[in-house]
Amino acid sequence: MRATLIYGAGDVRIETVPDPELREPSDAIVRVVRSCICGSDLWPYGSRPATGDGERIGHEFLGVVEDVGRDVSGLAAGDLVVAPFVWADNTCDFCREGLQTSCRHGGMWARDGIDGGQGEAVRVPQAQGTLVKLPVGEDSALLPSLLALSDVFPTGHHCAVTAGVGPHTSVTVIGDGAVGLSAVLAAKRLGAERIILMGRHKDRTDLGREFGATDVVAERGEEGVERVRELTGGDGTHTVLECVGLRPAIETAFAVVRDGGTVSRVGAPQYPDVPADFGVFFRNITLTGGVAPARAYIDELLPDVLDGRVQPGKVFDRTVTLDQVPDGYRAMADRSALKVLIQP
Amino acid sequence: MRATLIYGAGDVRIETVPDPELREPSDAIVRVVRSCICGSDLWPYGSRPATGDGERIGHEFLGVVEDVGRDVSGLAAGDLVVAPFVWADNTCDFCREGLQTSCRHGGMWARDGIDGGQGEAVRVPQAQGTLVKLPVGEDSALLPSLLALSDVFPTGHHCAVTAGVGPHTSVTVIGDGAVGLSAVLAAKRLGAERIILMGRHKDRTDLGREFGATDVVAERGEEGVERVRELTGGDGTHTVLECVGLRPAIETAFAVVRDGGTVSRVGAPQYPDVPADFGVFFRNITLTGGVAPARAYIDELLPDVLDGRVQPGKVFDRTVTLDQVPDGYRAMADRSALKVLIQP
Repeated sequence: MRATLIYGAGDVRIETVPDPELREPSDAIVRVVRSCICGSDLWPYGSRPATGDGERIGHEFLGVVEDVGRDVSGLAAGDLVVAPFVWADNTCDFCREGLQTSCRHGGMWARDGIDGGQGEAVRVPQAQGTLVKLPVGEDSALLPSLLALSDVFPTGHHCAVTAGVGPHTSVTVIGDGAVGLSAVLAAKRLGAERIILMGRHKDRTDLGREFGATDVVAERGEEGVERVRELTGGDGTHTVLECVGLRPAIETAFAVVRDGGTVSRVGAPQYPDVPADFGVFFRNITLTGGVAPARAYIDELLPDVLDGRVQPGKVFDRTVTLDQVPDGYRAMADRSALKVLIQP
Repeated sequence: MRATLIYGAGDVRIETVPDPELREPSDAIVRVVRSCICGSDLWPYGSRPATGDGERIGHEFLGVVEDVGRDVSGLAAGDLVVAPFVWADNTCDFCREGLQTSCRHGGMWARDGIDGGQGEAVRVPQAQGTLVKLPVGEDSALLPSLLALSDVFPTGHHCAVTAGVGPHTSVTVIGDGAVGLSAVLAAKRLGAERIILMGRHKDRTDLGREFGATDVVAERGEEGVERVRELTGGDGTHTVLECVGLRPAIETAFAVVRDGGTVSRVGAPQYPDVPADFGVFFRNITLTGGVAPARAYIDELLPDVLDGRVQPGKVFDRTVTLDQVPDGYRAMADRSALKVLIQP
């Protein structure tokens, strides 16, 4: 089959790789119907050293089950399924607590001999725990929003949930990428009435307004902080959803959060430390968030996607074939695409 | 009157200062019956530059009301009262939310012309919001535990509450100072069944066991981390209460917390940043805590102190007169005293 490999910064290739086969009785084979490129794929795309060895890449996909191992029940060939971006048995103590990203028998796609999502097919370990059956056909117009359940929408949701967003919390979302916009949508869905979106790409913040943002702050740094403070009577917001992952973003987060409030971060951190000095301490700021256990949220979010109450798939603004994946990376890296859908 | 001033590292003096007088209608004058030295007083005692100017110091006291301004109701001359370590109006939005440390009209003792607690008397701003009346006489044997409501016990309690300690959470407490031991007592009171105390002073950890610690880890650094991991099947504990304030302690906290768990810190941080790299992010660790809004907790904790169910005053292992306060600082700094009570 064909799949995407990354060889180094800016160097993504489509190559022929071995077809996936069942290895463990808990495996399934899934033919990929839709995949996509994640903002987090842009970190290695921006900086991976060129080693001469390609690595598989991609961790978001939905597809059709082609075969299942003998220990997999509840799934059969022909089922349309979505995979969360970390695979898990969904039965261990961490999974039962809703932290499938720390599953005792789980792991990451495109690592340690596991297929990546940006290819024609995937061997899915722990298939019964990992895959979620979708009650639509592979021609459904809902596929983009259903694919968003793999990562980007649950990630925004995790950010909002761990921050404690609800009807009585004001919210600042930092970042107008696909995750930031998903966090706006999630905050709105959880009842937030005041959602300030910090972002400077008008086409993106326009989608943010459609998703529920009540205010947009295009300024950055000190000026952006002042603007959020102005909008909130000087206090900042109860919650801040940090959806970038860079140090200036997390610094802004601490600067615009209200005393006693919560900063949640879901942007994969490109920094070793966060500000936590006496000022932060005196203001009783909580820092939470992390990698989203998407599997924990899919059951809750799926009905809203199926009935069209939320349309997280609107973050996809370009579709490519597998051969065009390198163009997709370029488009996301140069910000001409928000998020790229792959139709293999 | 006489009061304690700090002139520089290691230089604490008892001097005559102006008697406090009512200035605002919301003030009260309190004659100090008991005060004490805080672990946080040791930071300036260890490092304050000598400037030739002395500053008042001390933020924990209980005493007898001598006079009240015309806007103060519910308090009268002769009442025994305890003061939380930050004064506050107890009516603003932050106070109503239980965050009196961020009160819009509050502030710190021993700053900006406000008296410190380590003296013979104090002018108390926002007296009605700040002071809590105690239903005992100034000869009560409960005074040490009632004084502990000023700071050290609510600080341990805040650490446990913000960490989410309850009957089903395992706990590691880092630090066997008075705050760490108070955190053990608070965690036990909140129902924790497994409380691992990291500390290496046997007399202190013995009190920790009396307060509810089920395990003591005397090792520090990597060895201490391994020991906690051994005790918890490799996982670490759901909550970690960091009661030191130094970078190695917060690093240990992140190393011994279970995936999805919470680190709460109440040791005044002597570091600008905390570890928050991809590993912490992937493990979904929350960092919370901060300066304790003691006023928010006194009403809840007071009944347990009055009926003897908790005895937080056991952290006091030495009593000094006002003249002996410099000896008290030395004793706490060289660890020969755990926490020093002052009887002016």
